[in-house]
Amino acid sequence: MSTKNVGLRNIEVADTKICSIDGDNGKLTYRGFDIFDLTKNSTFEETSYLLLFGDLPTEPQLQDFKKQLHSSRDIPVQVMRAMKERPKSASPMDVLQSSVSMLADFDESINDDSKSANVRRAISLIAKFPTIVAAWNSIRNGASLVQPSKDLTHAANSLFMLKGKEPDKEFARDFDVCLILHAEHSFNASTFAAREVASTRAHMYASIAAAVGALSGELHGGANVKVMHALKEIGSIDAVEKWVKERLDAAGRIMGMGHAVYKTDDPRAKILREMSRRLAAKTNTPWYDMTKKIEDLTKKEMRKRKKAEIFANVDLYSASVYYAMGIPIDLNTPIFAIARVAGWASHIIEEKFAEAQPKPVIYRPKATYVGRYCGPLGCEYVPIQKRDH
Amino acid sequence: MSTKNVGLRNIEVADTKICSIDGDNGKLTYRGFDIFDLTKNSTFEETSYLLLFGDLPTEPQLQDFKKQLHSSRDIPVQVMRAMKERPKSASPMDVLQSSVSMLADFDESINDDSKSANVRRAISLIAKFPTIVAAWNSIRNGASLVQPSKDLTHAANSLFMLKGKEPDKEFARDFDVCLILHAEHSFNASTFAAREVASTRAHMYASIAAAVGALSGELHGGANVKVMHALKEIGSIDAVEKWVKERLDAAGRIMGMGHAVYKTDDPRAKILREMSRRLAAKTNTPWYDMTKKIEDLTKKEMRKRKKAEIFANVDLYSASVYYAMGIPIDLNTPIFAIARVAGWASHIIEEKFAEAQPKPVIYRPKATYVGRYCGPLGCEYVPIQKRDH
Repeated sequence: MSTKNVGLRNIEVADTKICSIDGDNGKLTYRGFDIFDLTKNSTFEETSYLLLFGDLPTEPQLQDFKKQLHSSRDIPVQVMRAMKERPKSASPMDVLQSSVSMLADFDESINDDSKSANVRRAISLIAKFPTIVAAWNSIRNGASLVQPSKDLTHAANSLFMLKGKEPDKEFARDFDVCLILHAEHSFNASTFAAREVASTRAHMYASIAAAVGALSGELHGGANVKVMHALKEIGSIDAVEKWVKERLDAAGRIMGMGHAVYKTDDPRAKILREMSRRLAAKTNTPWYDMTKKIEDLTKKEMRKRKKAEIFANVDLYSASVYYAMGIPIDLNTPIFAIARVAGWASHIIEEKFAEAQPKPVIYRPKATYVGRYCGPLGCEYVPIQKRDH
Repeated sequence: MSTKNVGLRNIEVADTKICSIDGDNGKLTYRGFDIFDLTKNSTFEETSYLLLFGDLPTEPQLQDFKKQLHSSRDIPVQVMRAMKERPKSASPMDVLQSSVSMLADFDESINDDSKSANVRRAISLIAKFPTIVAAWNSIRNGASLVQPSKDLTHAANSLFMLKGKEPDKEFARDFDVCLILHAEHSFNASTFAAREVASTRAHMYASIAAAVGALSGELHGGANVKVMHALKEIGSIDAVEKWVKERLDAAGRIMGMGHAVYKTDDPRAKILREMSRRLAAKTNTPWYDMTKKIEDLTKKEMRKRKKAEIFANVDLYSASVYYAMGIPIDLNTPIFAIARVAGWASHIIEEKFAEAQPKPVIYRPKATYVGRYCGPLGCEYVPIQKRDH
């Protein structure tokens, strides 16, 4: 590889006011507020407001914001009907991606690229994501659609639509905390994709559809699905050690372990680890103990093998948490999206309306050409009859 | 702006063997072959083969490739039915984006991420793009669907489906040349978006849907639509001078002029300029003369204003070319996509299967945090009752 900037790992691409990550010390803040304070005190609605508007809301601001969210939960019947055309085997992330881009059809001011129009769009998308995911889950299961509630919280309504009944208070609050934890994480691959698409002046739906695509990859949001499948494949705590060693021997990746930015405990993993432990006790399941053993063993084996130290990331414990809540495994990534859409939308608005000078421009990197070269005139175009490979 | 890497303009993000651009000398090669040679001698089918496989095909290879393309032109009836659910005002680029991601549902080996599976996917997508664009055009116009021909060339079949009748030989060949010209352009914003999404191990449909989103922006593929609207708004050659001066006085952008990479004539603009001139004579329309005057005047005015020299890009003359062919203006960008999908797919395959060591990794740049900072513990979370902005 000739290029030095593989994965852009140390390249600063833009100014941002939305999120700071101190990977060395495991500190994560949204708009200056520590993630531990937010998960302790805030709600997903308030955190979304904070991300979008830059500060915590006053009481009337929050009430108004919630009202807008609650009244935007319904999705157009045409989007629902388009979903019904799909085979039941369709991936929920593919369904989410195409549904988001279809929502553009129903935005009557789609050509208005003002800040206020984009904020309206952002609120509408945050409100609609759980409805899309739950609608597809009902459709593929042949179950009747659950209409969004007008008064449950965002977290409780999401679980309500997914499961067909109101969650208990503890699950609802835990899910709320999960949404806060997943709402934002600076220039991760999906957020960067959203900003990149927005930098061409594409609209928010097109940009967020791109982010959904990026999140679907197993190295990004798809990892929490892989973790849960791994747990089920391993089956019991006694089988963990063999599995971890075999994976590492084969130079395989342990999904949920390691992060491009954190060189210590991911603060989100700390919160989810404790939640997973509590929910395992509540539901009497082995998943927490197994996950903890995977974490501990992977760290130990990496030390033994004199490899770089490795830590749990946000995906390791979210898998068992969502499983304990009774969420179908392949919805783990869509649920990540339900939270992260707040961050994506905030970044798109920052990309489109940055106060910085010079203004951000379309992302157009260079590449290092290492291909065929036949001199300044190019390679000779040999007529097809004379080609002989 | 604190960051130095605005738009990543001089950052080399990856090795590539697909395309080289010498912006100083106006040279563009695909896999080592000069764009002038390809537009003179090749076809879109052959050029797509070259981009995907790295070399020009032999006669049997090309025949086989064409056979695969021809037999993959149909799109699933469910994708068609989902389109029919959309309001007729839906943007063709939004329809294309969601239809691409819906195609994933019908890929029976969607979990096979091998190189051969991706090549199969690439051929299928290249074949299906014109069908999607034409189907939506028919649906929104309430016209009957035109089934793809099994034996016309890719270019002729595209025009056939769009217009309902077979194009004459000259239009078909001109359109073929347009497709070759637009098929690839290294790490432009949409291709970069496609690679970025693929870097998470997301599948090709999700990655290409992201690219479609990026291309829709008016600073990228949307520019050729803006150019044609501008020509129609200006109306006559006498009004060009006033329009150009007013735009420049208002520090407005002249769409179709200027490029992030070329510091001289864009070779594609050279070819399209001549084609536009020829088609204007054939169709007896003013669009070529007006476009040429916009180009000349903008260059002259920029010199007068002591601004950096500026050149026509690929979008300036493609607008009048497509208009002369009778293509609806808002399909200019989808037609760009019909060509560029060959480049996107080739880049996704390169991203997923690069031979380079170290392997490419997920794109995860840094950002420069310039937001609120309240010390290492973060800002104080003030309870909502006590907030007073």
